[in-house]
Amino acid sequence: MRGDPYGSHRVISPKGLLPQAAERVDNSPTICSNEILIDVIALQPTATAFGRIKQECGGDVNRIAQEIQKIVDERGKFQDPVTKSGGILIGRIKEIGADLAGSTDAQVGDKIATLVSLSLTPLKINEITSIDVDTEQVFCKASAILFESGIYTKLPEDLGDQLSLALMDVAGAPAQVAVHVKAGDTVVVVGAGKAGLLCLAEAKKRVAPTGKVICMEYSPRQCEIVRSLGIADVVLEADAKKPLEALDIYQNALGDQLADFTVNTVSVPNTELATVLVTKDTGMVYFFSMSTDFAKASLGAEGIKKYVPMLIGNGYYPGHAEIAFDAVRREEKLRDYFTKRYCK
Amino acid sequence: MRGDPYGSHRVISPKGLLPQAAERVDNSPTICSNEILIDVIALQPTATAFGRIKQECGGDVNRIAQEIQKIVDERGKFQDPVTKSGGILIGRIKEIGADLAGSTDAQVGDKIATLVSLSLTPLKINEITSIDVDTEQVFCKASAILFESGIYTKLPEDLGDQLSLALMDVAGAPAQVAVHVKAGDTVVVVGAGKAGLLCLAEAKKRVAPTGKVICMEYSPRQCEIVRSLGIADVVLEADAKKPLEALDIYQNALGDQLADFTVNTVSVPNTELATVLVTKDTGMVYFFSMSTDFAKASLGAEGIKKYVPMLIGNGYYPGHAEIAFDAVRREEKLRDYFTKRYCK
Repeated sequence: MRGDPYGSHRVISPKGLLPQAAERVDNSPTICSNEILIDVIALQPTATAFGRIKQECGGDVNRIAQEIQKIVDERGKFQDPVTKSGGILIGRIKEIGADLAGSTDAQVGDKIATLVSLSLTPLKINEITSIDVDTEQVFCKASAILFESGIYTKLPEDLGDQLSLALMDVAGAPAQVAVHVKAGDTVVVVGAGKAGLLCLAEAKKRVAPTGKVICMEYSPRQCEIVRSLGIADVVLEADAKKPLEALDIYQNALGDQLADFTVNTVSVPNTELATVLVTKDTGMVYFFSMSTDFAKASLGAEGIKKYVPMLIGNGYYPGHAEIAFDAVRREEKLRDYFTKRYCK
Repeated sequence: MRGDPYGSHRVISPKGLLPQAAERVDNSPTICSNEILIDVIALQPTATAFGRIKQECGGDVNRIAQEIQKIVDERGKFQDPVTKSGGILIGRIKEIGADLAGSTDAQVGDKIATLVSLSLTPLKINEITSIDVDTEQVFCKASAILFESGIYTKLPEDLGDQLSLALMDVAGAPAQVAVHVKAGDTVVVVGAGKAGLLCLAEAKKRVAPTGKVICMEYSPRQCEIVRSLGIADVVLEADAKKPLEALDIYQNALGDQLADFTVNTVSVPNTELATVLVTKDTGMVYFFSMSTDFAKASLGAEGIKKYVPMLIGNGYYPGHAEIAFDAVRREEKLRDYFTKRYCK
């Protein structure tokens, strides 16, 4: 049997929706002729999804494991029911449907990362073997299904599994910097977590030698890391949840030089307005964070008479994994930092 | 006393936020030297806010009035606590702060419409005199405050108050069509309510003579109206809440000719994916509807491997009211339809 390219044949309820919007999907490991079966090595939930679950479980690793198992048992996929967010996974190809034989260069046994969200990927967890609360990676014995429209990439050998997984999870962010930012631009990156650091590194390359890269980050410790990595021209310690205070800090450092491109990577709510305030009307805002609230961004911008285009983040862009890998290969200090952080 | 241009001096709680994000603002009718006091004639809540309240009140006009009064009493502004959405108002200028005397051409007594959202406009309702459930206009005795950054427009004499109010409420939608759509484009407008009809009329002008305008609308009755107005080349009766079915209907009519620009104006949830599915990757999606869910749009697009840029709607764009008025003046049938619908 040949399935729908988007996977709607696996939707159990409600019918008529695609897998991402569905409550429950069929996670049985018997594949259609245009599906790929994967032996899962590890899940990388999004910071938003993992953070929500971790908080609910008081940081207790056993309770986090139980909660993840429960979500997947109930839904047939890993999608945090509160934030709707998923993540990605790495694994080995176990079986390739006959109809895909000619159209893919992957082979059984290849180690790959899926680049479509876990929130739509049929997943059956037999056992969670360990969770690294620090890197937010979930190691497990599990099987997953990739649809015909699903995308994946072979893991690069030089970076290692854990680092590759960590990078691919947020590769949609630096990809947008790569396609929107040009020489001479003033670029602001709000939030200097994993996605933010990659955006800073990518922005640094794109604006050079005439532009400026500004990092706006809440934590003094993380600000120090950004300074030591040398990937921002200006590092502002500011709380983007307080829009007027954040704008004040920005203007004290940069005067009226607002941003041509601002990317928000903060995984907590209520940072929309500060992001808009530091951006020119003729510029662009990219909300990569899944904590973004549509109405807060829309009405917030209108309320301050800003008409800067605001883009909804997208985890996918053609070649996005390659862009993220390239940034890390180029920036030696960043690579060392990520390696220490994500490779145990 | 001079207030903050963005109105933060009127925020009661939580402090540090701007009025739109605040729970409660100070609605006292004593103005700062850079504020404008307005004698309100009528409110035009957004379709999203009014629809939510109307549903909760079972369509009962007295209960709707009570609910609106209660919201404004509690918050000092009209912002639906569930959808966070507001609307706009019309009124007469009662007082202009001394510091604004030189910078505005408005005079005391002028009839204006505010173009910033009610969700951030200090408002004190003394009495709701009547509500038109059909046009969703709320007539009342009330006072409102406009901040220095606030925008407003004098009401055009040729269109009348009620029609002008109805048009300005959604003027941000056709304005984006006007700046993004060009000759030869294929444009899809999802939803043919007030905003949708204006977008269709604007798109028709912009794509001519070489492009195509497609209307996707759920209600057969509304489809018939669009056909009679002659503002769409193709009218598709389709439920955008069912993405695969909607795509199927689209492709039956248009084959693989996906949209260069799609604007979503539907005021119900779960229409994100259909909107994305009918749009080219090299095109653009504009989510004007306040019912849009950020995560559903973001993860939905990623899940089907679409990387089309998706813009967050904004009620403001320079000259947007003029663009909406112009569309109605140009399209005689549309003007007649709106006049019948909104002018009692």
